[in-house]
Amino acid sequence: MATQKAEAPKGKLGVLVVGLGAVSTTFMAGVLAARKGLAKPVGSMTQYDKIRIGRGEDKKYLHYKDIVPIADLNDIVFGAWDVYPENAFESAVNAEVLKAKDILPLQAELEAIKPMKAAFDKNYAKRLDGNNVKDCKDRWDMAEQLREDIRNFKKETGVDRVVVLWAASTEVYVPVNDEVHGTLEALEAAMKADDKENIAPSMCYAYAALQEGCPFIMGAPNTTVDIPAMWELAEKTKMPIAGKDFKTGQTLVKSGFAPIIGTRCLGLNGWFSTNILGNRDGLVLDEPANFRTKEVSKLSTLESILVPEEQPDLYGHGNDEDTQYYHKVRINYYPPRNDNKEGWDNIDIFGWMGYPMQIKINFLCRDSILAAPLCLDLVLLSDLAMRAGRYGTQRFLSFFLKSPMHDYTKGEVPVNHLFQQYVMLKNAIREMGGYEADEEID
Amino acid sequence: MATQKAEAPKGKLGVLVVGLGAVSTTFMAGVLAARKGLAKPVGSMTQYDKIRIGRGEDKKYLHYKDIVPIADLNDIVFGAWDVYPENAFESAVNAEVLKAKDILPLQAELEAIKPMKAAFDKNYAKRLDGNNVKDCKDRWDMAEQLREDIRNFKKETGVDRVVVLWAASTEVYVPVNDEVHGTLEALEAAMKADDKENIAPSMCYAYAALQEGCPFIMGAPNTTVDIPAMWELAEKTKMPIAGKDFKTGQTLVKSGFAPIIGTRCLGLNGWFSTNILGNRDGLVLDEPANFRTKEVSKLSTLESILVPEEQPDLYGHGNDEDTQYYHKVRINYYPPRNDNKEGWDNIDIFGWMGYPMQIKINFLCRDSILAAPLCLDLVLLSDLAMRAGRYGTQRFLSFFLKSPMHDYTKGEVPVNHLFQQYVMLKNAIREMGGYEADEEID
Amino acid sequence: MATQKAEAPKGKLGVLVVGLGAVSTTFMAGVLAARKGLAKPVGSMTQYDKIRIGRGEDKKYLHYKDIVPIADLNDIVFGAWDVYPENAFESAVNAEVLKAKDILPLQAELEAIKPMKAAFDKNYAKRLDGNNVKDCKDRWDMAEQLREDIRNFKKETGVDRVVVLWAASTEVYVPVNDEVHGTLEALEAAMKADDKENIAPSMCYAYAALQEGCPFIMGAPNTTVDIPAMWELAEKTKMPIAGKDFKTGQTLVKSGFAPIIGTRCLGLNGWFSTNILGNRDGLVLDEPANFRTKEVSKLSTLESILVPEEQPDLYGHGNDEDTQYYHKVRINYYPPRNDNKEGWDNIDIFGWMGYPMQIKINFLCRDSILAAPLCLDLVLLSDLAMRAGRYGTQRFLSFFLKSPMHDYTKGEVPVNHLFQQYVMLKNAIREMGGYEADEEID
Amino acid sequence: MATQKAEAPKGKLGVLVVGLGAVSTTFMAGVLAARKGLAKPVGSMTQYDKIRIGRGEDKKYLHYKDIVPIADLNDIVFGAWDVYPENAFESAVNAEVLKAKDILPLQAELEAIKPMKAAFDKNYAKRLDGNNVKDCKDRWDMAEQLREDIRNFKKETGVDRVVVLWAASTEVYVPVNDEVHGTLEALEAAMKADDKENIAPSMCYAYAALQEGCPFIMGAPNTTVDIPAMWELAEKTKMPIAGKDFKTGQTLVKSGFAPIIGTRCLGLNGWFSTNILGNRDGLVLDEPANFRTKEVSKLSTLESILVPEEQPDLYGHGNDEDTQYYHKVRINYYPPRNDNKEGWDNIDIFGWMGYPMQIKINFLCRDSILAAPLCLDLVLLSDLAMRAGRYGTQRFLSFFLKSPMHDYTKGEVPVNHLFQQYVMLKNAIREMGGYEADEEID
Repeated sequence: MATQKAEAPKGKLGVLVVGLGAVSTTFMAGVLAARKGLAKPVGSMTQYDKIRIGRGEDKKYLHYKDIVPIADLNDIVFGAWDVYPENAFESAVNAEVLKAKDILPLQAELEAIKPMKAAFDKNYAKRLDGNNVKDCKDRWDMAEQLREDIRNFKKETGVDRVVVLWAASTEVYVPVNDEVHGTLEALEAAMKADDKENIAPSMCYAYAALQEGCPFIMGAPNTTVDIPAMWELAEKTKMPIAGKDFKTGQTLVKSGFAPIIGTRCLGLNGWFSTNILGNRDGLVLDEPANFRTKEVSKLSTLESILVPEEQPDLYGHGNDEDTQYYHKVRINYYPPRNDNKEGWDNIDIFGWMGYPMQIKINFLCRDSILAAPLCLDLVLLSDLAMRAGRYGTQRFLSFFLKSPMHDYTKGEVPVNHLFQQYVMLKNAIREMGGYEADEEID
Repeated sequence: MATQKAEAPKGKLGVLVVGLGAVSTTFMAGVLAARKGLAKPVGSMTQYDKIRIGRGEDKKYLHYKDIVPIADLNDIVFGAWDVYPENAFESAVNAEVLKAKDILPLQAELEAIKPMKAAFDKNYAKRLDGNNVKDCKDRWDMAEQLREDIRNFKKETGVDRVVVLWAASTEVYVPVNDEVHGTLEALEAAMKADDKENIAPSMCYAYAALQEGCPFIMGAPNTTVDIPAMWELAEKTKMPIAGKDFKTGQTLVKSGFAPIIGTRCLGLNGWFSTNILGNRDGLVLDEPANFRTKEVSKLSTLESILVPEEQPDLYGHGNDEDTQYYHKVRINYYPPRNDNKEGWDNIDIFGWMGYPMQIKINFLCRDSILAAPLCLDLVLLSDLAMRAGRYGTQRFLSFFLKSPMHDYTKGEVPVNHLFQQYVMLKNAIREMGGYEADEEID
Repeated sequence: MATQKAEAPKGKLGVLVVGLGAVSTTFMAGVLAARKGLAKPVGSMTQYDKIRIGRGEDKKYLHYKDIVPIADLNDIVFGAWDVYPENAFESAVNAEVLKAKDILPLQAELEAIKPMKAAFDKNYAKRLDGNNVKDCKDRWDMAEQLREDIRNFKKETGVDRVVVLWAASTEVYVPVNDEVHGTLEALEAAMKADDKENIAPSMCYAYAALQEGCPFIMGAPNTTVDIPAMWELAEKTKMPIAGKDFKTGQTLVKSGFAPIIGTRCLGLNGWFSTNILGNRDGLVLDEPANFRTKEVSKLSTLESILVPEEQPDLYGHGNDEDTQYYHKVRINYYPPRNDNKEGWDNIDIFGWMGYPMQIKINFLCRDSILAAPLCLDLVLLSDLAMRAGRYGTQRFLSFFLKSPMHDYTKGEVPVNHLFQQYVMLKNAIREMGGYEADEEID
Repeated sequence: MATQKAEAPKGKLGVLVVGLGAVSTTFMAGVLAARKGLAKPVGSMTQYDKIRIGRGEDKKYLHYKDIVPIADLNDIVFGAWDVYPENAFESAVNAEVLKAKDILPLQAELEAIKPMKAAFDKNYAKRLDGNNVKDCKDRWDMAEQLREDIRNFKKETGVDRVVVLWAASTEVYVPVNDEVHGTLEALEAAMKADDKENIAPSMCYAYAALQEGCPFIMGAPNTTVDIPAMWELAEKTKMPIAGKDFKTGQTLVKSGFAPIIGTRCLGLNGWFSTNILGNRDGLVLDEPANFRTKEVSKLSTLESILVPEEQPDLYGHGNDEDTQYYHKVRINYYPPRNDNKEGWDNIDIFGWMGYPMQIKINFLCRDSILAAPLCLDLVLLSDLAMRAGRYGTQRFLSFFLKSPMHDYTKGEVPVNHLFQQYVMLKNAIREMGGYEADEEID
């Protein structure tokens, strides 16, 4: 993949979101409100961060928009699919994330966003039962219908480009199966054979997006684009893909806090993370098969930052049976909180001569408030990457993701360390702006 | 200051510690135990950290000792001053930091470390009243006696080099007074005139150390080496100086956690930090004049990481009266905990569209366990800097310090961001090892 | 004081509140909303609690209103004094305690509550500077003007009875001075002599209320009615008095949690309590002289529940210097939270063989939401007590108060144990309902 | 059951403990240490609590031993069964609960306590695999062998009386099955038929104890003595039985804290409790079938204190689907902590006008340190009850138990409110001391 300067955008940018729930409507409302000067898009790197370009005497700190040609908020046009028929205004009200005073000034614009019928299979999300659902002959037909939706959306809105963003629920865990997921050919055959077990609905969305020339972003922990078949398709269509799982609450803290421990050469005996959350996401994750998908996504963070093999004195034990620290993640559905997620982390560290200490982090966060700016940044940066000729897996977007994509067939390892991810992000922006990147990330 | 490769050490390294209390004896016991293979020096960068040297294909990750000629633990010889006459074994037992089983195997070696009489002025630490104190005619005489102590220690032990480390209590706050502290000449005149108000005992230690060719490290928040007169003396004697205030519990977390907030472009409304601690340090800080010294040291951390002027939307308010977030630090003497310090931080952040969230960090730490590896690293790296011809303020040691030295007369600002401090540390090690440094720190 | 059955109320009940701020307007709004069926008066004993009356086979659990003739919410008429001229609607909006949707339906009724000019002396609350203030010749004149206000309020509204409730700020600490506060005669002389140092404005309110035949309730920690002169006046006028300091957040928890430790015979080494709060109350308490008043009120709670003399093995040490556990209370003004107070308690207990354990309680509470039902209960129960011929100090109201009144000249000790206070409350209700009380409270 | 004064004890009291692990050895070591004056039995009601006897003028506050003839610590003789062969000294060292300095002075006495072979069935505790196990033909034979053990212990030690205490692991959940557990006759038939599914090993211990004239106490959440067959046997043999599950950490706090909320008429939306613990108890509970037993025991506490039917406005909702607040309990095996259990409770309450608030309780407790005094009290009070002619279910011991016994066939409900339990305890002591009890408990 050649590194090249991104081309300037022309025309509008369509954003098609899978799932029109709490995250999506908060994302949309915030963009619309920011355009009217009613609210600030806090938490968005593309809107706030400043990056150094140049070195020594020549260095300057610039906002992204002054380095690379990212699309303007005013040029975004929203569309969506959802299993429930409520429009974005109704859904935002139901989500109870934003206050009435923040939604009401946007009522007309939000009401205009009506969800297209979703590609859905109840076996992948037992707790959901909406009826705004496509009738599909098989998985191939499902993808075909989605492709048609995308083409129609383009035609009706006149947008120049489209990005497809999955902001829907976690599906049941689908392990990678080389016979089905190993090549594009095998994948297409399985879609045609209606292999419901190995082809999640989300894969049909990704397939449709890439075939239609749209970058695809996986915001849930689904393994949708973590398979060689999708990488092949992205290469073929020269489209960026990114995933997976928005890095919002507890994992954000973990990927930032673990480096503190690691940088100071403190030891780790155990890390226990528990969460309570009460929104639809929590309801879906209350189902063990869906939680499994999430757990796999959340557990890997720590192990790649504090590596027992590299520092056996520091991370190499923890209890009698294991050869490293003890790490456990729990998610608990707890309705009284609705969208207000709460994380509680207990970190058992040790210092000089092995003496133990404890750090406890209690994060009273809001899921959608943390996810919305990630949606914006992932959309704008995927669109930018496409215009810079970057396709396939976008490692520089790891910063935004709980379980960043990496091509394990090439021996790549995921980068979970928040500050190393940040260096990767900055370097990509520099390159796409025609500047030299810093060579190393540590 | 020319950057040069450090010379290899020859002979033993004397470490003279001011204050033979909890921190010092934990430091000494740990070094002695590590030499015998009885304990691990966890938390020490010089013993554990690995740094990348080289780039691209040539890059390697090496321990410090494989890059630069740091002194070996086996070559350290300890000495101390203290206002109380107890030897290091007795003091370690009284401190109740280490378990009996960890102190007993070191009894003979610790008993051999008997404190020299301290240079002390009760007006600078009202809560202390030891009697192992020098009788001094004036501040000049105080410094002269300390110089003689250093010469005697060298002679008796046969060490090749000595580093002097302040690990004693916080003194009453001494504001910088240009007429007294502005030049070496003025300082010496004030010492001779016995200006007790402007010349803290700690300044006599620093003066004596530098004149005797020993690097000086200030581990408490005293302003001892934060004055132009000392910088002049360090230049003249070509000695490194470092300070101030060991970065142990809450400030360590703050300097690591604030970058998470900043890196993700989240907003900050307020940060409230409170501490409970019950050791002698807490007792001294219960005196308002001594706490003032500490407070000045602790408050600056945040403001230099999250800078309101640079991101006014994110850090520019917090309440009606102020123009930035609200930041408050409290320290409470609470005897039931002894050396086990506990920090409680409440962080009021906000995200997308200004919606508020909270992060609470509860750190059950141990003051001396966190400070001991800092003592070791600061001593070894100051000695290394001296051999590399680096003298004056050692900015690369900011990583270890709560309120890092910087020459404000040259417009320098302190670097408090843990990961930027880490880059500075790594670069200095690379340079002293004869490798090229990375050019920028962000 | 004879125990007698309370007479039924006739006519309306006037409630004159000193201070028309967050607590008062939340109290008023809640009562008005409950009358319209728009909100529930949660937290109010008089509206929700059920008490057993009768014994054995005859026992029944009844609401207060079915045992005693408490005034109906529909019969309450509000009035107020305040140093700021805003009406209750404006003040409620400014307080930012209640959501707009909860205040707007009450707009007209709240706007009609306009504060009378306050009796104010800036030396008692330096941080306040309203201008809706009486011009008084001396303290005697101050009281006379307040008496006239009360008479006018009665005339204008036609209420049958009035209760005066202090829900204003904490004044500067006024130590009890027997020469001034010892007798009613001395107090009146000092008022006439305009003894500003010993006669706080709150004393003029209490004096005026009692002289006008109104019960007086002190909701702040002021010592207003903790002096023999006021007890004498209450006896003479046959009026109930109650105080002091609404038991809302941290002290409520402490008075309930300490009994758990005590009941299980666990030991206590220390209890550290810190608070952050950002409302006007916090601003006033940021002034040391005002905090002193609060501190005295808050510290006594624990010592009367866990008594070192009675259980020396359990509560008799804590550190070397003291003869009991270490107890410390801190209050910190922290504007980002506004009315949302946060308490953090750290409790160092010990168990079997002296082994230490820790309990940490983090209370994210809302000051006014917790205080409002106390206002209602104290008003209704003081009015009830008056009709039952109970006058002077009302010990049965200790349940609602942080530092309950007690006649120390008779050797009385305060009861701070929440569950003992509850028994006292229940017994008084039983008696005023004509039922037999349970004899003992433990 | 007639209430009568307890007879004075004569001779020694044997204490046979099932399970010689952390709890048992901490209990034994503490009793032995207290006898030697080396440690205090903190947390024990029988050793520390004082109760009021008499009323009005005649009331006095006395220790239990001055009211009733409880056995003296010096008269206790310990014995045990365990699946592991280690003696009490070895087991105490392995448990890592007590410090070496507290165990070593008791070495000889503890070494003398060697466990008899346990009655064990691996299907009831899959994670355990000791080999100090009886070879039993069937459940009847198992009970017979245990009876012989008890008779031998009595003979060898010459004790006058024996109490049998279960302080071993939680068994797999055994639902009450009326056909097997409904009558003593059915139970004995099932034992003879070797009905392994319905007859847990713990039932054989209970059966043996009661048949041999020993009170039986169930310290784990096993349903052993919660069945009509055991009540029948206890009636027949006139023996006290008590259970179940020592009320140590989180449930102790819950049974004490819920009354605070209830007493102040605050509302409850949800209560989320999570635990981390790393000892053998935690290991066993990591097995879902064993956790089920515990969960049933822990959940009931709250519902009987805050009763939705009685206060629907306060406890009647919590989320859309349910008719009451949301209550969830989680236990997590987390080896880094060993015996140091940590509870984290999040309590979502609401107050005036329904406004929400949160209370978070973080309990860093020690399982065995909290359980040991309960062992002592339950043993001494069961022995006392036997001498007072009290047999069958001992409701007055509810104070010590997480899931107190109650005869549901008579419509009894469990009392979980800590302070109501305390009144029941005090009344029983008063009665067994020949004094009058207070009639009511609320």
